[in-house]
Amino acid sequence: MRKSIGLKRRNRPSQSVKTTLPPGSPVFIGEKRVEKIRIDIIDYNENSIKECRDADLKECERLAKGQTVTWINVIGIHDPGIIEGIGSIFNLHPLTIEDIVNTNQRPKMEEFPDYLFIVLKMSTYNDETNNLEMEHVSLILGDNFVISFQEEEGDVFEPVRQRLRSSKGRIRKLKSDYLAYALMDAVVDHYFVAVERMGDWIEEVDDRIVAEPKQEDIQEIHRLKKNILILRKAVWPLREEIGSLEKSASHLIHPETRLFLRDLYDHTIQVIDITETFRDLVGGMHDTYLSGISNRMNEIMKVLTIFSTIFIPLTFIAGVYGTNFDNIPELHFKYGYFAMLGLMLIVALLMLRFFKRRGWI
Amino acid sequence: MRKSIGLKRRNRPSQSVKTTLPPGSPVFIGEKRVEKIRIDIIDYNENSIKECRDADLKECERLAKGQTVTWINVIGIHDPGIIEGIGSIFNLHPLTIEDIVNTNQRPKMEEFPDYLFIVLKMSTYNDETNNLEMEHVSLILGDNFVISFQEEEGDVFEPVRQRLRSSKGRIRKLKSDYLAYALMDAVVDHYFVAVERMGDWIEEVDDRIVAEPKQEDIQEIHRLKKNILILRKAVWPLREEIGSLEKSASHLIHPETRLFLRDLYDHTIQVIDITETFRDLVGGMHDTYLSGISNRMNEIMKVLTIFSTIFIPLTFIAGVYGTNFDNIPELHFKYGYFAMLGLMLIVALLMLRFFKRRGWI
Amino acid sequence: MRKSIGLKRRNRPSQSVKTTLPPGSPVFIGEKRVEKIRIDIIDYNENSIKECRDADLKECERLAKGQTVTWINVIGIHDPGIIEGIGSIFNLHPLTIEDIVNTNQRPKMEEFPDYLFIVLKMSTYNDETNNLEMEHVSLILGDNFVISFQEEEGDVFEPVRQRLRSSKGRIRKLKSDYLAYALMDAVVDHYFVAVERMGDWIEEVDDRIVAEPKQEDIQEIHRLKKNILILRKAVWPLREEIGSLEKSASHLIHPETRLFLRDLYDHTIQVIDITETFRDLVGGMHDTYLSGISNRMNEIMKVLTIFSTIFIPLTFIAGVYGTNFDNIPELHFKYGYFAMLGLMLIVALLMLRFFKRRGWI
Amino acid sequence: MRKSIGLKRRNRPSQSVKTTLPPGSPVFIGEKRVEKIRIDIIDYNENSIKECRDADLKECERLAKGQTVTWINVIGIHDPGIIEGIGSIFNLHPLTIEDIVNTNQRPKMEEFPDYLFIVLKMSTYNDETNNLEMEHVSLILGDNFVISFQEEEGDVFEPVRQRLRSSKGRIRKLKSDYLAYALMDAVVDHYFVAVERMGDWIEEVDDRIVAEPKQEDIQEIHRLKKNILILRKAVWPLREEIGSLEKSASHLIHPETRLFLRDLYDHTIQVIDITETFRDLVGGMHDTYLSGISNRMNEIMKVLTIFSTIFIPLTFIAGVYGTNFDNIPELHFKYGYFAMLGLMLIVALLMLRFFKRRGWI
Amino acid sequence: MRKSIGLKRRNRPSQSVKTTLPPGSPVFIGEKRVEKIRIDIIDYNENSIKECRDADLKECERLAKGQTVTWINVIGIHDPGIIEGIGSIFNLHPLTIEDIVNTNQRPKMEEFPDYLFIVLKMSTYNDETNNLEMEHVSLILGDNFVISFQEEEGDVFEPVRQRLRSSKGRIRKLKSDYLAYALMDAVVDHYFVAVERMGDWIEEVDDRIVAEPKQEDIQEIHRLKKNILILRKAVWPLREEIGSLEKSASHLIHPETRLFLRDLYDHTIQVIDITETFRDLVGGMHDTYLSGISNRMNEIMKVLTIFSTIFIPLTFIAGVYGTNFDNIPELHFKYGYFAMLGLMLIVALLMLRFFKRRGWI
Repeated sequence: MRKSIGLKRRNRPSQSVKTTLPPGSPVFIGEKRVEKIRIDIIDYNENSIKECRDADLKECERLAKGQTVTWINVIGIHDPGIIEGIGSIFNLHPLTIEDIVNTNQRPKMEEFPDYLFIVLKMSTYNDETNNLEMEHVSLILGDNFVISFQEEEGDVFEPVRQRLRSSKGRIRKLKSDYLAYALMDAVVDHYFVAVERMGDWIEEVDDRIVAEPKQEDIQEIHRLKKNILILRKAVWPLREEIGSLEKSASHLIHPETRLFLRDLYDHTIQVIDITETFRDLVGGMHDTYLSGISNRMNEIMKVLTIFSTIFIPLTFIAGVYGTNFDNIPELHFKYGYFAMLGLMLIVALLMLRFFKRRGWI
Repeated sequence: MRKSIGLKRRNRPSQSVKTTLPPGSPVFIGEKRVEKIRIDIIDYNENSIKECRDADLKECERLAKGQTVTWINVIGIHDPGIIEGIGSIFNLHPLTIEDIVNTNQRPKMEEFPDYLFIVLKMSTYNDETNNLEMEHVSLILGDNFVISFQEEEGDVFEPVRQRLRSSKGRIRKLKSDYLAYALMDAVVDHYFVAVERMGDWIEEVDDRIVAEPKQEDIQEIHRLKKNILILRKAVWPLREEIGSLEKSASHLIHPETRLFLRDLYDHTIQVIDITETFRDLVGGMHDTYLSGISNRMNEIMKVLTIFSTIFIPLTFIAGVYGTNFDNIPELHFKYGYFAMLGLMLIVALLMLRFFKRRGWI
Repeated sequence: MRKSIGLKRRNRPSQSVKTTLPPGSPVFIGEKRVEKIRIDIIDYNENSIKECRDADLKECERLAKGQTVTWINVIGIHDPGIIEGIGSIFNLHPLTIEDIVNTNQRPKMEEFPDYLFIVLKMSTYNDETNNLEMEHVSLILGDNFVISFQEEEGDVFEPVRQRLRSSKGRIRKLKSDYLAYALMDAVVDHYFVAVERMGDWIEEVDDRIVAEPKQEDIQEIHRLKKNILILRKAVWPLREEIGSLEKSASHLIHPETRLFLRDLYDHTIQVIDITETFRDLVGGMHDTYLSGISNRMNEIMKVLTIFSTIFIPLTFIAGVYGTNFDNIPELHFKYGYFAMLGLMLIVALLMLRFFKRRGWI
Repeated sequence: MRKSIGLKRRNRPSQSVKTTLPPGSPVFIGEKRVEKIRIDIIDYNENSIKECRDADLKECERLAKGQTVTWINVIGIHDPGIIEGIGSIFNLHPLTIEDIVNTNQRPKMEEFPDYLFIVLKMSTYNDETNNLEMEHVSLILGDNFVISFQEEEGDVFEPVRQRLRSSKGRIRKLKSDYLAYALMDAVVDHYFVAVERMGDWIEEVDDRIVAEPKQEDIQEIHRLKKNILILRKAVWPLREEIGSLEKSASHLIHPETRLFLRDLYDHTIQVIDITETFRDLVGGMHDTYLSGISNRMNEIMKVLTIFSTIFIPLTFIAGVYGTNFDNIPELHFKYGYFAMLGLMLIVALLMLRFFKRRGWI
Repeated sequence: MRKSIGLKRRNRPSQSVKTTLPPGSPVFIGEKRVEKIRIDIIDYNENSIKECRDADLKECERLAKGQTVTWINVIGIHDPGIIEGIGSIFNLHPLTIEDIVNTNQRPKMEEFPDYLFIVLKMSTYNDETNNLEMEHVSLILGDNFVISFQEEEGDVFEPVRQRLRSSKGRIRKLKSDYLAYALMDAVVDHYFVAVERMGDWIEEVDDRIVAEPKQEDIQEIHRLKKNILILRKAVWPLREEIGSLEKSASHLIHPETRLFLRDLYDHTIQVIDITETFRDLVGGMHDTYLSGISNRMNEIMKVLTIFSTIFIPLTFIAGVYGTNFDNIPELHFKYGYFAMLGLMLIVALLMLRFFKRRGWI
């Protein structure tokens, strides 16, 4: 869902096409982000590790059948043909394939007899556009293999690769379920980076609004709200997803991994907590903005009031002595003019005092 | 519920009539949309397919009793007599018949010993009136047959017919439960088309409001809200309906179809998600509108303020020198008049500077 | 709860009295609506029917003990003595009797060993006062008999009587549970009439507010809100009530009737749905009203602004040439006066153009 | 919580002291309301009744051990020593004693092996201060005895005493559980009195606001909201409390009493219902207030607008003819002055007509 | 989370670092608050007690293995090495260690085979900055030992130490589960102190706003809201945490302690109740503030209106008699000028009367 905060526009053509196709037909819904689909494989057990960049489907099949844990990472999902190829090798259900290529699919976990299917959203905070961007990620957790599908190169899985290569730690000793957990953990951990950036943005906008609200700010608040909407749509389903993964009776999840999934669940709750806090903060920001704007208007109004209210009687006095009556005694006093000016000064000072006492100045 | 956003007006007469009738009496509640009820039949198994347009009830009965899957599509529900005829052939409960002809019936799924009864709302987005229109659709899923009732010709089932005719794919091999699923899937898929159109509409209105809010826009926001209300009323019950269909213990639902129903459930959640997002967006739009309107007023107020506040002291000065005192020394200075004009200019410039420094201009 | 939207005032005296009495004491809380309590009986089985107007308690007892279904309709509940008499004949629990005569009792269903006790609110929309009025109705469903208690003559049960008399249809063949269902169905069906009237009222007010909001309208919106509150208080508990009746394990409810109760439950949900829609609509109406009022104020403000802002500099110019300086060259030009008028015209036109360009006119 | 709407101020000192004491230490938290703790006893069975005012602990012990039902009413809870004395006689858990003397304890029901512990809030509506006051009441329901603790003399239990003395009715025949129920019923019944008074207050404020909102009213609305908060805090937990009492498996609750507890539960729901209605009404009142205030401002604004807008052009015309140009032909017309006055009149009338047509006057 | 209301800024660097490490790696996330980690031990049974300040890990191990109850209090959590050392002695799961040093971890309870892991937030109300500060506290409850981790010296556990030393009371007789309860109880009791202070603050701000709202107050309300957010985040999870501890099937929790945990649960509910009340109060405060501000503006507007509206016609009259028409009869009346002044006075008085009658003055 890169490059656009428009929640659904981009995908329309395909979605409309889709309504005329049988269910289970893999139609890519989204934006093509890489030229060619690429498959990277990491195959490992406790003692050895083998990496293979740009592998072909044959290779995948051969490695996945072995006793080692095989991680097949597919970059690019816009070519349903290749995805279907992978699907037939690993015996994936047509509906699974449909969901892999549908970037609108919300996060979920589905159990199939031979594998678990996990959909996630990978978050990136784009510093230039100040937008949260979501990438569609699917995981297939099978016996001894994990297949991950992502929309484009550049991901949050690099730390997992490093840990695999460094050959130390739990990850090389445990099975494919721990690998799947590690990938999900990387995705969730990355939400923290995204929400921290958003937190900065929120604080920055908040500071600006408290100091001096501008009319443009309302649009920024609007954009913040939309980003929080996107974030909520990605993280709320996660809670149920990881919760049901932890409680799943599938033989693919070993007891040892469950503890880690519980921890992951915990992290998800934390992200949701922060998201909800953001929502409250941005909601309050709107109030602050309105108060600020109205305070500025009040300030302006007050100046007008004081000016008008002071000058109105003065101008009236001048008006009285501007009349052309034959008989206006004051006009002929020697210092009548200065007396009038003095009177005006006194009236003005009295009014200022009145305003000051009321606390209006 | 075509042609009107009025949520209940159209159906009143019949509804009132209904209160005096025994429960289970089929009274058509709605608007007559076709002249004559028409029955179309598609009868198929894996090897053969037979279509029959404008069939009679006898034909229905004969085909439904066979081993092939029979899809009976009834167009028009305004004649309770014919519907009752179908009811007696297929042994439908009186309450089922009552619900088939009541276009106010909300979506639901009911299990009867011999059949499952499913009520849906088919959505159409009317581009001319910019309104979402709902059509009442009922499905009877029995052993080897599906009966669908719709209000008028022109539906979202055409792709299903195409797939049946093309004789390829899952649909010809599986039983009547898959056909019912396919019909429901067509309805739900069509919601995506409707929400995409609404999404466009929302974005268009949003853009317009952000650029320059007009007084008419509040009525458009009002209409959007009503449409979202209609949409929510149609899709929220769907969730429970499809969920309980998936979990139903009925022998009519085969395990193979359950996976597809789970997928359908998923799509429903997605439509609900989008609907709720729309609600949030339109709610925020109202705020944006109010902010925009008030910003415009503020802009106008500011101009008034600055004008008034600048001219008030100037007019006062002119007033002072318009008085008719005998002794006003300044009046007799040679360049008194020009000095006054200069003084006015200076006062005006000082005030402009004051406003500029405060950021009011 | 006739004739008053005041939610609790009318019943105070009795309620205060009540606090000093033991629980289970039947104290009539409400407004006396008929002079004398009257008992009507309809006794029927599949073959015969017997009606008895203004029966006495003896008669009730005799008929209720028979094998025929007996419907005892009690009109007026303000005399606890008579109600207690009925209670002792049918062995009703003191708490049941207390609830029958307490018109504040909310809808509920209670199972007692020998009978089911059902409390309902019968709705009437008073066209004159534009208020929704609720009447307290209680049903006792026993073996072979149903006792209904209502506050005054004139009810929604007439269609049920007609069906009983016409001797056709399900109602004469089935047991007392179906009769109780039929009575409840009549009550719920009547809600549809009430909500339709309210719907008209809401649309009428809505149209008026959209066209031209007046200050009185806020009070009408207020009244609408109160009526919706009353409606919600009557229909929300209905949902739980009918739901638990349907699921009740009581031997008094036959399987055949359960299907009808499920249908009734469905209708209740529909009424609740409409009520909630009303709430949303009336909530939105308030926003529309405020927008409308503020738009009118804005319109007025704009006229003021334009008038002031145009005349302020013109008046200033006149002021300048009204000063009495000895040396104001322009004053002595032959067409100075007309030049000034021309200048004023130009200034006014320039300002009008400025306003037009900004879209303020 | 008498005499103060401040939700927590009064109790601070003790609460702070408490944090340094072990859990289960009885520290009186609240305001001392009586001088000396007094114990009243009523001991009864079906045939005899014995009352004992200002009894000592010995007496309590002796009577409680007998086969008669003993009601020990303790007035005043500020002396932990005496409460601990009672606790040791009846073998109360230290945490129970802590809760008895802590007036901040919220309503709850706790089962202990030998007794049930029930905390309630007794409501009084103070007519002078227009505040709802809550008194902390605890009940210990044991085998053959009930101990009630209250903060001060004057309570809602008088009707229960009357019924005990009058020796008729259920209460003398049944066991201690019915007595406990009767006391709880008295407390809940009294809520109706309190909410009726609040209802009057709300209606009175509402009427006043609809007629003519004043600035002081916002503080009254504020106070109403705080009172409703206090009421909600007292009645919401009651629901769970009485519900779990009804469903409790304790041998202390006899089946006969359960029906009465169900009724009490029902009454509690009714109080909650009214409270929530109050909340809605008071929330709406705030809107009405704001509308009213803004309508008044609008009225004032309109007068200003019409005045200003009518006089602005008139003053301008006068200004034009006040200029000192040598050549202003109109000035020398014989009826020039009257023509000007006529012109002014026409302008004023035209403007009035314009305003009238727009509906501004 | 000391010294900052910024909800996440402070911890960013470490959090970002963390995303590249394997799960279960203890990375200190927070602010270093003490120089050196210090370990204090209290070892006791019913008869003896031994305290040991600044103990080393060896000592810990030796004491924890004994039959006495050992309380190991670790002050400072910024050095993962030492925490891991403790972890390996007591066989703590890597995820537990990760959570101990992550000050962002929300309150939770986790059961592990050998121990229970409890996360809490210790609240301190900073009187200088008027901010609520939270300190991260973790408890490990094992067989015969409790380990507590806190961020800095100075805690709420002092009363527990006193009670241990004084050798009387339950605490020395019971096991480690009661000690853990006592520590949690100390933390929860301290929330009462914090909410009381906040209550004072709220009342103080409320009083100020009711008396005379200032523009700065909106920022104070904003800060109050943020503090309540922090409080809610700390106390809401507590409810679930203590609830599941009470219901836990772990052998580490003895039945005797469960009663105390139920009481603790109760206190937690009370804190949550107060927090929610605060939220309502502060929400209402915002309304009061806005009303107050707008009332002040209205007051100012009214003065302007009355001034303008009174002087506008007077100035107009003066303007009329300032015109230079040759023939203005009034000008030549002897007392014309005084008549004009009289007329002006009458006009002014009439208008004042008009305003008074309308209640505007």
